[in-house]
Amino acid sequence: MSTGPGWLRVVGLGPGDPRYLTAETLDVLAAATDLVGYGPYVARVPERAGLTRHASDNRVEVERAREALALAASGRAVAVVSGGDPGIFAMAAAVLEAIEAGPAAWRALDVAVLPGISAMQAASARLGAMLGHDFCAISLSDNLKPWATILSRLTAAAQADFVIAIYNPASRARPDRIHEAFALLRRLKAGATVTALARAVGRPDERILVTTLAAVDPGQVDMATLVLVGSSETRLIPRGGGLPDWVLTPRSYGAGR
Amino acid sequence: MSTGPGWLRVVGLGPGDPRYLTAETLDVLAAATDLVGYGPYVARVPERAGLTRHASDNRVEVERAREALALAASGRAVAVVSGGDPGIFAMAAAVLEAIEAGPAAWRALDVAVLPGISAMQAASARLGAMLGHDFCAISLSDNLKPWATILSRLTAAAQADFVIAIYNPASRARPDRIHEAFALLRRLKAGATVTALARAVGRPDERILVTTLAAVDPGQVDMATLVLVGSSETRLIPRGGGLPDWVLTPRSYGAGR
Repeated sequence: MSTGPGWLRVVGLGPGDPRYLTAETLDVLAAATDLVGYGPYVARVPERAGLTRHASDNRVEVERAREALALAASGRAVAVVSGGDPGIFAMAAAVLEAIEAGPAAWRALDVAVLPGISAMQAASARLGAMLGHDFCAISLSDNLKPWATILSRLTAAAQADFVIAIYNPASRARPDRIHEAFALLRRLKAGATVTALARAVGRPDERILVTTLAAVDPGQVDMATLVLVGSSETRLIPRGGGLPDWVLTPRSYGAGR
Repeated sequence: MSTGPGWLRVVGLGPGDPRYLTAETLDVLAAATDLVGYGPYVARVPERAGLTRHASDNRVEVERAREALALAASGRAVAVVSGGDPGIFAMAAAVLEAIEAGPAAWRALDVAVLPGISAMQAASARLGAMLGHDFCAISLSDNLKPWATILSRLTAAAQADFVIAIYNPASRARPDRIHEAFALLRRLKAGATVTALARAVGRPDERILVTTLAAVDPGQVDMATLVLVGSSETRLIPRGGGLPDWVLTPRSYGAGR
């Protein structure tokens, strides 16, 4: 499928642990001549001879994508890196937006997106099976969509009793968004709803907190936190012996109603 | 964290391509003494000396989980395998349900769930960035939840304009469920909504069809198909030259409204 000398692959580095990388992603990272991404992600990939790093600031996704496409068009072998799965609130959409708005020749470039492990998957696995049933994933960032849309999606997700994964829950510019989101969810869901905050899963500074919707402290949520809010069926399995409880969203629904 | 001589890991084999496996999952498959799973998944793991396979029929998830836990309790090193991500409509929940209902000693076993690549991620990546924004994942199987719950979740997902990933869309026992689901979505969403059917992504028999909600043929959906229904913002980027269009759900929402 190569239509030119260069290529571009959009890859994800997972939530942190290099052991979450797929064989396909490792192959691309080994073959690339150029690495393009937000600084902290580029820094996660070991340096090696023949690899040029192009680290950029946050919030310049489309400029970063354009730089990567121009490199590929010039014959370079380019890996665009972000965290998690590049297709889930990461760089895949930005690269396609840049292709759509860019020179026609970019549409014929050898470009592919490679799936990766997203934060909600690593968090759910560490907890047990919190995403064990129907769920949704919502970004709380209102940089590119109206806050009213975000609130209406949270409302729909609560009313339909999905497990809810909340990405980008906080930022320095918008510290009170997660407060508003929890306040809304508390009006719509039981206070006892299992709620988890997961940060840096698989990294040495991993921190996972399991609490309830009534008790969760929005002050403990930062931009690197993934928030999981259970359905009405999500429950704990105590293990004893100092082991953390399992968190289970069972496959059955409504059996006890 | 090992609390006994045996262990159990719940792993996913991804949608088919072995290159989607993570390093962590490959390590477990190499170390296991026993492989437990639905026959077709067990068959995907190469045989080797020292590995005993326990293949079971479909629809016996909890019995299969109990067998695996009993093996681990007896000191074996057990990998429970399913497709995709074991935490997304696969074996993780069944294993925890078996622990919850089983002997107290099972709660102290060395058990862990490992995240994997789910079908919606591989399909979205192959298409470009179809999951590029808020989305939900719904299983159409009504073995364990009321059909009315499924319809209410599809309704909420359509009204909130999520991209919708539909798992387990059809079966021999319930061939008309996907017809009903599409009929409901057609009443709630525009006929031009981008809709994709993805089967066996990464396998030699991969088949991906991009169409619209008005035109999609439910007769082409089988149990191994992942259905993706776009949001109102999901659009195609024509590439020309015989290349398939990109499918993009952009990061921005409502800019043109």
